[in-house]
Amino acid sequence: MMVNVERIKRDIETMAGFTSTPGDGVTRLSFSEEDRRARDYMKGEMERAGLVVYEDAAGTIFGRREGSKKKGKKAASIMIGSHFDSVPHGGAFDGTAGVVAAIEIARVMNEKGTVTEHPVEFVAFIEEEGGRFGSGLFGSRAIKGDVTVDDLKNAIDADGVSMYKAMMDFGLDPDGIRKAKRGKGSIAAFIELHIEQGPVLENEGVDIGIVEGIVGISEYEVEIIGSPDHAGTTPMTLRHDALVEASDLIIYVNELAKTVGEGTVGTVGKIRIEPGAANVVPGKVIMSVDIRSMDRMIMDEIWGKLKSGADVLKEKGFEVNYSNKLYVPPVSLDENIRDIIKSVAEKLGYKHRGMVSGAGHDAMVMASIAPAAMVFVPSKNGRSHCPEEWTDYEDLAKGAEVVLETLLELDKK
Amino acid sequence: MMVNVERIKRDIETMAGFTSTPGDGVTRLSFSEEDRRARDYMKGEMERAGLVVYEDAAGTIFGRREGSKKKGKKAASIMIGSHFDSVPHGGAFDGTAGVVAAIEIARVMNEKGTVTEHPVEFVAFIEEEGGRFGSGLFGSRAIKGDVTVDDLKNAIDADGVSMYKAMMDFGLDPDGIRKAKRGKGSIAAFIELHIEQGPVLENEGVDIGIVEGIVGISEYEVEIIGSPDHAGTTPMTLRHDALVEASDLIIYVNELAKTVGEGTVGTVGKIRIEPGAANVVPGKVIMSVDIRSMDRMIMDEIWGKLKSGADVLKEKGFEVNYSNKLYVPPVSLDENIRDIIKSVAEKLGYKHRGMVSGAGHDAMVMASIAPAAMVFVPSKNGRSHCPEEWTDYEDLAKGAEVVLETLLELDKK
Repeated sequence: MMVNVERIKRDIETMAGFTSTPGDGVTRLSFSEEDRRARDYMKGEMERAGLVVYEDAAGTIFGRREGSKKKGKKAASIMIGSHFDSVPHGGAFDGTAGVVAAIEIARVMNEKGTVTEHPVEFVAFIEEEGGRFGSGLFGSRAIKGDVTVDDLKNAIDADGVSMYKAMMDFGLDPDGIRKAKRGKGSIAAFIELHIEQGPVLENEGVDIGIVEGIVGISEYEVEIIGSPDHAGTTPMTLRHDALVEASDLIIYVNELAKTVGEGTVGTVGKIRIEPGAANVVPGKVIMSVDIRSMDRMIMDEIWGKLKSGADVLKEKGFEVNYSNKLYVPPVSLDENIRDIIKSVAEKLGYKHRGMVSGAGHDAMVMASIAPAAMVFVPSKNGRSHCPEEWTDYEDLAKGAEVVLETLLELDKK
Repeated sequence: MMVNVERIKRDIETMAGFTSTPGDGVTRLSFSEEDRRARDYMKGEMERAGLVVYEDAAGTIFGRREGSKKKGKKAASIMIGSHFDSVPHGGAFDGTAGVVAAIEIARVMNEKGTVTEHPVEFVAFIEEEGGRFGSGLFGSRAIKGDVTVDDLKNAIDADGVSMYKAMMDFGLDPDGIRKAKRGKGSIAAFIELHIEQGPVLENEGVDIGIVEGIVGISEYEVEIIGSPDHAGTTPMTLRHDALVEASDLIIYVNELAKTVGEGTVGTVGKIRIEPGAANVVPGKVIMSVDIRSMDRMIMDEIWGKLKSGADVLKEKGFEVNYSNKLYVPPVSLDENIRDIIKSVAEKLGYKHRGMVSGAGHDAMVMASIAPAAMVFVPSKNGRSHCPEEWTDYEDLAKGAEVVLETLLELDKK
């Protein structure tokens, strides 16, 4: 193995120390003291690996290695990396795994004196989780040119601080956010290594997940209003129990997603009932419905069936209201890079499989400006966004090897 | 009609003014300023109706009218009335309707110079709802002799004040609580008029509900623990979704109660899920199950079936925990008094029907020390424990007439 597992372990552990909640998971919000300490560490490691380090207007960190044939800022680079912010009380691997892998790849290339035709950029995106300002995928959206100064002023954290002010206080220039936009053709390819955040790879004993695409997400809020009657004195036949009807829909969402099969999921993760007393028939239920699929038509079909099921309640005397909270179409990742990853994994003797990502990633934004790919490594028990999040360092190293070899293959094209 | 609808209306409206939440329902908690004002008003009205007024050690108010044949404290009295405390943001009728009806009956008897053989006691019970100290049916339990000084010290309100201290501050003698106990045979009969709190009488256009019994209540807390996985990355087949399983049980409770039929009800009124985010599979559900029936065996059978259904989840990898929160056996009311009520209602030309009470009442405690009966009057839309609670004054007057005539019939026996 070319990459060094010990250095990967050290980097993950060091980065995990940059948390505002020691002993209770990694909490590294954007433009915080922990961001500063993690940032300084990564920039130091990048410089030690011979990279030219800079930050863009969004606060995303880049370490650049020039290419032999294509030089200068206009030369299309191959970019690898992930994000370095976390959710509150998250784990040590989500995002950081991909950043640490990229830095280790830079070290190996530096030590071996590898010469590539393309420039290579090693990236650590900021605010992917939206953990502080609620607007995720921020670093990649800034590169795409999707973020305005107004967006920065309108994004407010839990303490009432705007992203604009937080960036200013951090020493960035929020008024220059447009400068983060990268010109068309300045990126030849983007590869992101990330933990799976699901149980599939571990369950099947597979080393490498080759991500075919990132699911689309539609999230709805469904409100069912019945009648909050006395649970003792209201006969069963005269009730309008909102929770009993909601239960039918919860089961229906589950069945619809199961019927469609792998890659499509449907979840009711949030439910609130009123008045919520043991001796009162639930008069109102408000619940979330989250539908994800690689096929936009399937997303819409599941919602359509569910809505028809809920509409029937109106005839039974219930009031039913819906609102759409989120609609993100699915994104397919680059087939050519996927093929290279597959042949590299086979050459290295790693078990691999194609899969879809059920979570959003910077790669889904990057895919709109460059050929993009993702490599997944196993998550222990499928857990993520919690202190228990774990990936074996050997598995992470295998993923880094695959990304390195893929990068070198891509460079030849 | 012998009773005066206008006086009933005035009393209800006046009592509704003794609330700590004006404009937002009646909130009259025990031993509060509003209790004091309502108490003074009722005692004044009782005295004006020629009654000898006293309070027992629990704070329950009695207005006594001596009998012709049976005199003195040892003579068995016929007792009528209900409670005068309320739930927070409750209505103007729950409890108060029965107290106001009793006071109006005392007035009519006083005006007509009615002579009864038995003493008659007009009662306004305290803390029936448990709205302040969580321990309902307090006044009647004190009469039964079920309340100890320790109970008073252990019952704590939302502000941390014990019932013991609240009673002391109110001018009562909590150390003498045992003095509230009534000797066996000191009560010949007890009749309580109460609003139905359900929709049956109004739905069927019936004036008078003759309560055959008060359902037993068993309340359980069920906890289902699955796995809080990422809603995007965890395939449907690898989930342990606690809410989907809980939904099955919610529907099952509903079906089991429906199958048994009238008088038996089953309700899940409270549900809490963790972590409770739209993009996380519910890892834990805690819910209440409330089962009520006139048949104790049915109560136990429904719970048994439900528990078996939940136990199956353990084989599917879930943890399931149960705890019993409340178990009150059903109480049958006195058949002889029910027969008298029935014949009185027919004589007066009021539509009547037998029914069970799905809510608890002081009458269920009184039934253990004396022959007890209840008369229900219609609740508009079946609503109670809310500002919208309503009973037409004419309906309430009809109920009062029935109680008065029943009292006179009973006195002859």
